[in-house]
Amino acid sequence: MDPYVIQMSSKGSLPSILDLHVNVGGRSSVPGKMKGRKARWSVRPSDMAKKTFNPIRAIVDNMKVKPNPNKTMISLSIGDPTVFGNLPTDPEVTQAMKDALDSGKYNGYAPSIGFLSSREEIASYYHCPEAPLEAKDVILTSGCSQAIDLCLAVLANPGQNILVPRPGFSLYKTLAESMGIEVKLYNLLPEKSWEIDLKQLESLIDEKTACLIVNNPSNPCGSVFSKRHLQKILAVAARQCVPILADEIYGDMVFSDCKYEPLATLSTDVPILSCGGLAKRWLVPGWRLGWILIHDRRDIFGNEIRDGLVKLSQRILGPCTIVQGALKSILCRTPGEFYHNTLSFLKSNADLCYGALAAIPGLRPVRPSGAMYLMCFEYPNFIRVVITVPEVMMLEACSRIQEFCEQHYHCAEGSQEECDK
Amino acid sequence: MDPYVIQMSSKGSLPSILDLHVNVGGRSSVPGKMKGRKARWSVRPSDMAKKTFNPIRAIVDNMKVKPNPNKTMISLSIGDPTVFGNLPTDPEVTQAMKDALDSGKYNGYAPSIGFLSSREEIASYYHCPEAPLEAKDVILTSGCSQAIDLCLAVLANPGQNILVPRPGFSLYKTLAESMGIEVKLYNLLPEKSWEIDLKQLESLIDEKTACLIVNNPSNPCGSVFSKRHLQKILAVAARQCVPILADEIYGDMVFSDCKYEPLATLSTDVPILSCGGLAKRWLVPGWRLGWILIHDRRDIFGNEIRDGLVKLSQRILGPCTIVQGALKSILCRTPGEFYHNTLSFLKSNADLCYGALAAIPGLRPVRPSGAMYLMCFEYPNFIRVVITVPEVMMLEACSRIQEFCEQHYHCAEGSQEECDK
Repeated sequence: MDPYVIQMSSKGSLPSILDLHVNVGGRSSVPGKMKGRKARWSVRPSDMAKKTFNPIRAIVDNMKVKPNPNKTMISLSIGDPTVFGNLPTDPEVTQAMKDALDSGKYNGYAPSIGFLSSREEIASYYHCPEAPLEAKDVILTSGCSQAIDLCLAVLANPGQNILVPRPGFSLYKTLAESMGIEVKLYNLLPEKSWEIDLKQLESLIDEKTACLIVNNPSNPCGSVFSKRHLQKILAVAARQCVPILADEIYGDMVFSDCKYEPLATLSTDVPILSCGGLAKRWLVPGWRLGWILIHDRRDIFGNEIRDGLVKLSQRILGPCTIVQGALKSILCRTPGEFYHNTLSFLKSNADLCYGALAAIPGLRPVRPSGAMYLMCFEYPNFIRVVITVPEVMMLEACSRIQEFCEQHYHCAEGSQEECDK
Repeated sequence: MDPYVIQMSSKGSLPSILDLHVNVGGRSSVPGKMKGRKARWSVRPSDMAKKTFNPIRAIVDNMKVKPNPNKTMISLSIGDPTVFGNLPTDPEVTQAMKDALDSGKYNGYAPSIGFLSSREEIASYYHCPEAPLEAKDVILTSGCSQAIDLCLAVLANPGQNILVPRPGFSLYKTLAESMGIEVKLYNLLPEKSWEIDLKQLESLIDEKTACLIVNNPSNPCGSVFSKRHLQKILAVAARQCVPILADEIYGDMVFSDCKYEPLATLSTDVPILSCGGLAKRWLVPGWRLGWILIHDRRDIFGNEIRDGLVKLSQRILGPCTIVQGALKSILCRTPGEFYHNTLSFLKSNADLCYGALAAIPGLRPVRPSGAMYLMCFEYPNFIRVVITVPEVMMLEACSRIQEFCEQHYHCAEGSQEECDK
């Protein structure tokens, strides 16, 4: 007789746990109860789940704002350039996706690090003599978030630490702490256009430091580091033998009066994992195509780190294959004026926003040089303003902020101490 | 004077670490060297990277097969129905993607668990009176792999164990071991159409058991559990208070003579996370759209596990928004004959393959009832055959296997012991 016969209740459905009897080898009993798991249900989330906290998503996904009936909402909170419809991607980008769909060639599994042809396209697009790249140096990921996740996962063990900018993108902390990696915050100096406080940065480094995250151009500061400052950062990393995770998702998104220098072009010594993606420059953050560029000319990462990244990419595989298939056309056919127009709009909005906020008592904005943000603060409080909204709304938002500040700012000028109370 | 001035080498590029001198407060020294990280570069991959091993991807992505010049390759190794072009997705599925692209509404970030409208579509598609679903019970993921990853990550801590079928899909082990979760293998019985050895399964459960993975229809077995057998599995879970991760990515992919029963429709007691996706039934595995369906009518998972899944989803966000935007049309407009034709083809190929292999001395195939595979074995060795290849190639592959077996099989009939030598 089958030892696992269930005595069905008269309803024919599975009996509830309370009246379940199992006939084992002729004896009616509850086998395994003593040696088994538990006598009662108790399902608790893992420590990792409990440790995972993404403040931006937690706020934005759960925000229940009671709207002011007299004012339409103007959201300045999420770095998503698509929200207001004023910054559509280029038609060539959409067409590239349709062509990939029609080809029928991109429905199947890609290798977990991405199609070779797609990795070749990224490699040749970002290759330059100072920082050469081949397909083997490129790993495609499900958005820049997964790129950062894989880099942290391969470089750091629980108990180690990473160096993270303050103010900085909150995901670094979210990912690190979910993996039990300690976050040490180094300061960006608003009075120095958000350059890194290098002395304080270096003082944080210890034998457990697994990597230094450098985010340039910066979210949330909208700042762009000079070549000279980047060289100084590299000197710290070289001296302390700390590899760099360069978050360059806003790469090339700088305003006309300054220049973006990919970090890896300035060093032959420091091993660098540069993270990027289509999200911001091509205005399609939802498509989730990111990448890691491995720069390691002194062979410090070696095969071990490369293999580690490949193995970690095999956990959930990479980005949507249709976007991978569209990549060549997206990179080659997007017209130069698309990038130019995006940046012109951002620069114009940045100036507009800076001008309006600088005139408000109690606010001290820092003029941005790139990315999509403006930081505004009165020490020790900061706000980030997303500058991708249409011009009219940008002005309306600034005027509402002004109204708010005029009502609530009662601090004597120059009296920093009073403000802090 | 800036304490972090770099004395540039004459070439003007960043000097190498060997000749780097930094001028600190007027003293030429190497600051932080003593308290710092290390004097030499040493970047090693994390334990997680070292523990991560996906045997399928490792083999397939790295396979270098020297082709036989007289024979074209017929790959029976990867469960990708798109490889040979004989199983394209339905034109409605492709059109749905183009419509989502043209709408311009799906380029931005979605909530990390997916657009509400897309989750509503999945909920209503899989809702039934025995296992009701609402949008809040659905989490969209980057492929079914990420669905499984999130479920394991939320249910199990390092040091706990999960119960995994043998033979079974290798990713369970890959994901679990990368997180330090122990894998305990329970046996599927080929002589009982790959039903679970329930007694052996139950004997594995201990107080550290975090969940039971049930994969139905089965990869690699091609088997489909009866309602009765599923009820017995649920009885074990209920008795031992072990939640179930139901991998139902091949749900509804069963041949005409048997019926697929979603596990959650058979229990009101056992909390179940059911994982699925577009990959197999809609023949687009590369698009990376998966989902978790939360079935928890007795509120055993409660808000804690739900919140844990949401928090974990915020680490890298979910699937490509274009596929999310296309979901409604994919589910509603794909014609019934598309599913029917796919299954007819698979059933016909399964019969063909079974017939051909059953006639080969040394092989004992088990006739599949669903999914896309046939398992073939002579104890203790198994091979999995993917049955999505075109009919002519299926026959050619069987004939090559026959030729191979006839050359290499020299075992006396009935003498199991000799075979094992």
